[in-house]
Amino acid sequence: MFESAEIGHAIAKETYDAEVPALREALLEAQYDLHEQGKRQIIVLINGIEGAGKGETVKLLNEWMDPRFIEVRTFDQQTDEELAHPTAWRYWRQLPAKGRMGVFFGNWYSQMLQGRVHGLFKDAVLDQAINGSERLEKMLTDEGALIFKFWFHLSKKQMKSRLKQLKDDPLHSWRISPLDWQQSKTYDKFVRYGERVLRRTSREYAPWHVIEGVDPYYRSLTVGRLLLEGMQAALNAPEPNAQPLSVGPLAHNHDDVTLLGSLDMSLSLEKDDYEEQLITEQARLSGNIRDKRMRKHALVAVFEGNDAAGKGGAIRRVAAALDPRQYNIVPIAAPSEDERAQPYLWRFWRQIPARGKFTVFDRSWYGRVLVERVEGFCSEADWLRAYGEINDFEEQLTDAGIVVVKFWLAIDDKTQLERFKAREKIPFKRHKITDEDWRNREKWPQYREAVGDMVDRTSTEIAPWTLVEANDKRWARVKVLRTLNEALEAAFARDKKK
Amino acid sequence: MFESAEIGHAIAKETYDAEVPALREALLEAQYDLHEQGKRQIIVLINGIEGAGKGETVKLLNEWMDPRFIEVRTFDQQTDEELAHPTAWRYWRQLPAKGRMGVFFGNWYSQMLQGRVHGLFKDAVLDQAINGSERLEKMLTDEGALIFKFWFHLSKKQMKSRLKQLKDDPLHSWRISPLDWQQSKTYDKFVRYGERVLRRTSREYAPWHVIEGVDPYYRSLTVGRLLLEGMQAALNAPEPNAQPLSVGPLAHNHDDVTLLGSLDMSLSLEKDDYEEQLITEQARLSGNIRDKRMRKHALVAVFEGNDAAGKGGAIRRVAAALDPRQYNIVPIAAPSEDERAQPYLWRFWRQIPARGKFTVFDRSWYGRVLVERVEGFCSEADWLRAYGEINDFEEQLTDAGIVVVKFWLAIDDKTQLERFKAREKIPFKRHKITDEDWRNREKWPQYREAVGDMVDRTSTEIAPWTLVEANDKRWARVKVLRTLNEALEAAFARDKKK
Repeated sequence: MFESAEIGHAIAKETYDAEVPALREALLEAQYDLHEQGKRQIIVLINGIEGAGKGETVKLLNEWMDPRFIEVRTFDQQTDEELAHPTAWRYWRQLPAKGRMGVFFGNWYSQMLQGRVHGLFKDAVLDQAINGSERLEKMLTDEGALIFKFWFHLSKKQMKSRLKQLKDDPLHSWRISPLDWQQSKTYDKFVRYGERVLRRTSREYAPWHVIEGVDPYYRSLTVGRLLLEGMQAALNAPEPNAQPLSVGPLAHNHDDVTLLGSLDMSLSLEKDDYEEQLITEQARLSGNIRDKRMRKHALVAVFEGNDAAGKGGAIRRVAAALDPRQYNIVPIAAPSEDERAQPYLWRFWRQIPARGKFTVFDRSWYGRVLVERVEGFCSEADWLRAYGEINDFEEQLTDAGIVVVKFWLAIDDKTQLERFKAREKIPFKRHKITDEDWRNREKWPQYREAVGDMVDRTSTEIAPWTLVEANDKRWARVKVLRTLNEALEAAFARDKKK
Repeated sequence: MFESAEIGHAIAKETYDAEVPALREALLEAQYDLHEQGKRQIIVLINGIEGAGKGETVKLLNEWMDPRFIEVRTFDQQTDEELAHPTAWRYWRQLPAKGRMGVFFGNWYSQMLQGRVHGLFKDAVLDQAINGSERLEKMLTDEGALIFKFWFHLSKKQMKSRLKQLKDDPLHSWRISPLDWQQSKTYDKFVRYGERVLRRTSREYAPWHVIEGVDPYYRSLTVGRLLLEGMQAALNAPEPNAQPLSVGPLAHNHDDVTLLGSLDMSLSLEKDDYEEQLITEQARLSGNIRDKRMRKHALVAVFEGNDAAGKGGAIRRVAAALDPRQYNIVPIAAPSEDERAQPYLWRFWRQIPARGKFTVFDRSWYGRVLVERVEGFCSEADWLRAYGEINDFEEQLTDAGIVVVKFWLAIDDKTQLERFKAREKIPFKRHKITDEDWRNREKWPQYREAVGDMVDRTSTEIAPWTLVEANDKRWARVKVLRTLNEALEAAFARDKKK
């Protein structure tokens, strides 16, 4: 993998000097065009051997292009806020907006390599991290991102002589590298695991480029040309998110038996039973959230459901059990301008709770496969890939100890109609019923199909869907609370077994 | 100040029960109306004596109103990211967007009171913090925010009996209060300094409400009614930012002698001198930024200037001196939707560098008194108050050790015309020249006046303006670099004297 980056590539100064002006101009042009287009963010990952010219190249890119549209990000020690969140959170919060370039100096690859080289974990964990990166990058590029992955390379001999040089250079000697590159063993390990990482994560949508780092002219020109080609190709490519589908649509039930259809919508609770059970479950939730075992976890509750199914009321009963300092309710409406300039999961990543906290999503990332699918706000390819992306996302949450509970509050057609009519009569509920709600009713069959597909494809062991029979609000509220409690207690029980 | 909150206010349960349903409905209604209007954020500050019902009241508000539009924020220990920024940064990053409510449980008042009670500083510092809060709240309300400040009170005797109760309550005993309220002295100090704080910060735009905390019915109804009245008054008030001016416009020069007019626009550098001085200043900047004394500081450089005055080129020469990991360039264009839902300084607070870092603003908060003033994007009252708000903002930055350097790059009319024409001919610069630039030229006199006022009112000892004669780009670039160096070195020298 690294062989052809140890053979002494070099470019003559004259060639370099002759070529740079046109290259710079073309890079600037492409950068401005991508910025104006505003459809893609450019993500440049900088990795490789110490002393191979990583910093110099990044500096040069900032000189060649317009640095106002470039964000250079370093990821060293995690801050305490980062440590309280899933691993990928720190990268999501630093993603450049579409039209801008983010240079990630230190990134998920450096994090996994350092962990492996330092022996913090074994190959199995490294491979999990590798798979995670692949999925992340696939999703980002599907959302329009352009990813460039540069591995700056040196042979061991080249590195040793380079480090010696740098040591004598006052401008460099202050830098601290988290790996002790002076050791021969460090180099060997880094290259061995690096090879494994590159082999597995070089994909057509985000290939690695191994750059021999000895000759600055060679390395700079090569990086510049690769960037330019990639940026130009992206400018000439069809719009992101408009890839034709290579598979047919989803296979559907050929009978009338559906998951939603199989719910017993007559389930209900008497007032007395309700009040007793509600108080019991609320006290139980209050205890669970305050339990010291909660410090290792966080809770994410997703509320989806038919319009007027009682999401708001159920959420209020959950909130009533708790100290308002312990939870955060996030209502999801149409994305804002800043949110539209990011992959669709970005706005949810921003709201992921820190350890010990609880976030309620009133509607969620499932909008992608519900309203966006039904209303045609995204392409078929977009919502089809979303099932896998969402499963990946939730796996990252659960891997970090977050308990993910998802509710679909189901009511039948008739109940919805009654509630709509009733709402129109109550002054402070009139906000809750709009023309859009009436229009949505006409798409009942499409939504039903979308819900079925959603549950089939995203109800997983780690983050199962709970279908809530919500014709009776009392039944629904108690079931919601009980499910949250069971999920938390199951997580606490699993901790014990570890 | 607290006398009438120690006399045993109480409301009968029947009165309470009779009044709550209508109050709730009206609160919900007002909340939805403010949300729909989207012009004001509601900020509720919760302070006062331990055990006086703060938490219970916040919980109740979440039950009475729609919790999806309420964000409860606690501010305990500062995180390491917060510690690396000016004090107010943590509050700015948690501001609710317009149309939403933020309940700040723990806030700038608790921070200053705890510091004073613990003896971390004396009255003079407390008074500085008090003044800072006043200015912050004045600015927020001028920007449309509704601020409610509640002080929940108990007499010492009432508190002691309440703490005893709470101690026996398993739901409460786990809570940790940063002050040891069991001590009589703590109470006395807290009340003494609290009195000072309330006295000085109760203003017509954000008055304090002292609430006796003993009787839950009294305290809940009182808070609910106060909130309702305030929210309804805001809904009936004229649009925020439309207050009539109580003072006349700015007084102007009655002769033709102006600051900009007094610049010697013929200043220039020969190529050889330029290259030598540029390299010298760049090396000096590189050294200053890497200097270990920089760890106590951060650097903020603001670039404003006539169109085509060479801001971009000057910024690139600054960047070229540095490792791209050390700086961040923030180009300021029209605010996004999320930014428009906040006070105008919010988007700049977001970008304030952490200690040790350097942020370049390519255009800045001065847009308020330049383009927004000249183009009429904000009212006269808005830009007139902005001078003071900006001075306050910059004082908060410098108080935190941030070195603030502000450049106005000035060119004359003729030079601008030449550069506009030249730019139109260079392909990769054509983006830099738009119809708007040509239109702006026609407003040259208005901009000139705005710049004069800006410099007169915001060139301060702690953050002076540097007017840069920029007809000659070489002169301008060297002057910019030299000014940055002098500012940093002056800050380092001041450290020594301390």
